[in-house]
Amino acid sequence: MSKKAVILLSGGLDSLVVGGLAREAGYSLLALSVAYGQRHACELDAASRVAAHLGVERHIVLPMDLRGFGGSALTDDIDVPKTGVEDGAIPVTYVPARNTIFLSLCLGWAEAAGARDLFIGVNALDYSGYPDCRPAFVEAFEQLANIATKAGVEGDRFTLHAPLLHLGKAEIVREGARLGLDMGLSWSCYDPTPEGEHCGLCDSCRLRHQGFLDAGVPDPTRYKLLP
Amino acid sequence: MSKKAVILLSGGLDSLVVGGLAREAGYSLLALSVAYGQRHACELDAASRVAAHLGVERHIVLPMDLRGFGGSALTDDIDVPKTGVEDGAIPVTYVPARNTIFLSLCLGWAEAAGARDLFIGVNALDYSGYPDCRPAFVEAFEQLANIATKAGVEGDRFTLHAPLLHLGKAEIVREGARLGLDMGLSWSCYDPTPEGEHCGLCDSCRLRHQGFLDAGVPDPTRYKLLP
Repeated sequence: MSKKAVILLSGGLDSLVVGGLAREAGYSLLALSVAYGQRHACELDAASRVAAHLGVERHIVLPMDLRGFGGSALTDDIDVPKTGVEDGAIPVTYVPARNTIFLSLCLGWAEAAGARDLFIGVNALDYSGYPDCRPAFVEAFEQLANIATKAGVEGDRFTLHAPLLHLGKAEIVREGARLGLDMGLSWSCYDPTPEGEHCGLCDSCRLRHQGFLDAGVPDPTRYKLLP
Repeated sequence: MSKKAVILLSGGLDSLVVGGLAREAGYSLLALSVAYGQRHACELDAASRVAAHLGVERHIVLPMDLRGFGGSALTDDIDVPKTGVEDGAIPVTYVPARNTIFLSLCLGWAEAAGARDLFIGVNALDYSGYPDCRPAFVEAFEQLANIATKAGVEGDRFTLHAPLLHLGKAEIVREGARLGLDMGLSWSCYDPTPEGEHCGLCDSCRLRHQGFLDAGVPDPTRYKLLP
């Protein structure tokens, strides 16, 4: 029986590629998605398609409505920016403590299911903007995981894998192509059209499309409008 | 306007007393309770009563069903032990990563609401059994909080307060009495009777009742049966 890993599966391109890498490393996958009141709920349909494509052992979509907390363009009525990616600033699409919350849930499931490996798709592009996507965050969370849990305290340690940490979007696209993944199943857009197309103008669409261009891999995504 | 704090409010005696201490320290309170599929859902009714008694600014009861993860007598069909508190062992009532998950949620709300102080009622008795109630856990979480968030990274630091950390149950009861709190509003039992009484025999009931006895404070709790 193969070792189990819990993967945080948003349904985006990064989490698809992380899942492909975890599978390639021989893990049997438990995939967690969170329905947190995101405006881009298409992401959750994509997560289910991606989970099936990866052949995960189990996929849990956990409803958890973070809208009551407020504070993000992804859950509130704040406009998603369309004018391009800003360097250095933390975007309004930042959701307070999101990765901490989601990884804590992965950790709880992992401990209960006997998995000691967690996978998350944070990467170099994300961490220029989001504090909870930086290498320091990945290290601090792994440390906490081994202090906070019965398994960790008993020496059966958790490892938090972030295999995309130092990759840009083009390298992620190339990894996806190398792994033979159907990247058209994934969803990136923060502000989908009613017809279910990627808007093409939000930060996430821009980074996705540029990644395919730079990688020289055909982009299977339907965008409403490209910049 | 007073400073805001987010308090993790289970509805138990400890969280009531922590709330009283935070209020005494001058904070205006945001209280978070989580409906995580616990068998002792009476706790949530108690949390609402306690929140009203403390005069909190806002109380959020967040539904988040952790039963799909499995692994605890508090959420699964595992019998709650009734034969007494064991020394040193991690109890079957341990819920994998519970405090990590709940504090992450507190952190998300705090960051969005402009609060930089978090309060949790972990204490010396808990940390003999639960890994996520020890001083090392409190420190590791605070460290993570300041790495994982926009506020923390920008130097507007979070503090995780655990004012009961070194107190036993009798001292907690005395603090509750000193603060003039109505401790009868709180709920401790892991295995309530259909009539809504405390069972009197689970670890949590035993520790509660002994705490009142040792403190010399009348115990307002209705127990079905005492050992």
